[in-house]
Amino acid sequence: MKNIKALVFDLYGTLYNVHSVVAECEQRFAGQGEAISVMWRQKQVEYTWLRGLSGDYKNFEEATADALRYTANHLGLELDEEGGAALCKAYLKLDAYPEVPTALAQLSALPLAILSNGSPNSIRKVVENSGLSAMFDQLISVDSVRTFKPHPSVYQLAEDRMGLAKEEILFVSCNPWDASGAKYFGYPVCWIKRNSVAFEELGQTPDMVASDLQDLADQLSETGVLPTRKETESQSTTI
Amino acid sequence: MKNIKALVFDLYGTLYNVHSVVAECEQRFAGQGEAISVMWRQKQVEYTWLRGLSGDYKNFEEATADALRYTANHLGLELDEEGGAALCKAYLKLDAYPEVPTALAQLSALPLAILSNGSPNSIRKVVENSGLSAMFDQLISVDSVRTFKPHPSVYQLAEDRMGLAKEEILFVSCNPWDASGAKYFGYPVCWIKRNSVAFEELGQTPDMVASDLQDLADQLSETGVLPTRKETESQSTTI
Repeated sequence: MKNIKALVFDLYGTLYNVHSVVAECEQRFAGQGEAISVMWRQKQVEYTWLRGLSGDYKNFEEATADALRYTANHLGLELDEEGGAALCKAYLKLDAYPEVPTALAQLSALPLAILSNGSPNSIRKVVENSGLSAMFDQLISVDSVRTFKPHPSVYQLAEDRMGLAKEEILFVSCNPWDASGAKYFGYPVCWIKRNSVAFEELGQTPDMVASDLQDLADQLSETGVLPTRKETESQSTTI
Repeated sequence: MKNIKALVFDLYGTLYNVHSVVAECEQRFAGQGEAISVMWRQKQVEYTWLRGLSGDYKNFEEATADALRYTANHLGLELDEEGGAALCKAYLKLDAYPEVPTALAQLSALPLAILSNGSPNSIRKVVENSGLSAMFDQLISVDSVRTFKPHPSVYQLAEDRMGLAKEEILFVSCNPWDASGAKYFGYPVCWIKRNSVAFEELGQTPDMVASDLQDLADQLSETGVLPTRKETESQSTTI
């Protein structure tokens, strides 16, 4: 962990809460917002895996729209094209988890990037809408390799774009399947364990586990990867 | 559909009921048999997609064992290695759906095969244990191409082994993601709609929908792909 020179974050579920869309779903289908959001997210992820594996690539916005259409069919909801488009827009305005802005400010003593299944447009919109654009050195989309995580060509993108060896990049994800894929590729990995889900049983173990991004920042300070808060404060006092 | 010269079936969920394992799960963890079986199956399928996409191939038995371990962790069940192995054995003794033996006998006027994510051993064991080995001309496992459905190299196997063009093979699956993948590859597809789940929204539409295998046999008789029951009966009377 001492060699870490940059942090690369997953976006959906790690920095941003995908279930921010519950409110919009609830407004349109009272009493079903949560059920819609959960199935929508599950199918969205499944569709990236299925499209990746079959080679029938379409970008993340399309996976999101397709997954919503499936969810509406499955739950028997009447959702026309306009309604679907309106709900999909909610995926561009996700809330960052509460601790994220402060934690990122602390973590940004190192170069920070996002590596996401999202299209370049989706990633940019989400980050811009949350006011966090200045935090990141790179926003990296799978779109240039036309497949999805956990395909190795996706994880390769971060190594190439950061100009660092994979051992120098800490990959940070809340999604166990993503953390597992990144670890299999060769990154040191921190699993953000926001909820008490079990880690995947795919033969990989994360190098670090943190409850949220602030916990990650604290742990990295303690181990000397980041300057501690005290050091940062005394530095700024000296200046 | 007139050109169909052979039928290729998915195994798990199409010919055999994966939830046959509920009884064994229930015996070991009273009151939780169904919850275990549902999560186990979901994770098993996910692990084939994830391992296929990451390139970290391990065979279907391993995906089954890994998925069970995840399920036990997630549900907080105490399951040691011996208990896990005992439950996994239940996956080799799945029940064929009730109509399957009779319907296959009728369908076997054409060459029949299985194309499955299962290992050669898993497929053979399941088919042998159900007494249906004589029905199939070919049991085809993904194992020789070391990936899983819906990777195109898997669907290619059936075309190669059957010695027919893809338009001459009707691919039959209960799993919408599998039916969708086979259709994208180029097979005419029948979706067996055993439960009222929605079809996947991946840009594909099945050529046929049947409620079970008997309905498939009836529809294929009506359209002249198979000899009708009457023809079969009168033939056997004449002989």
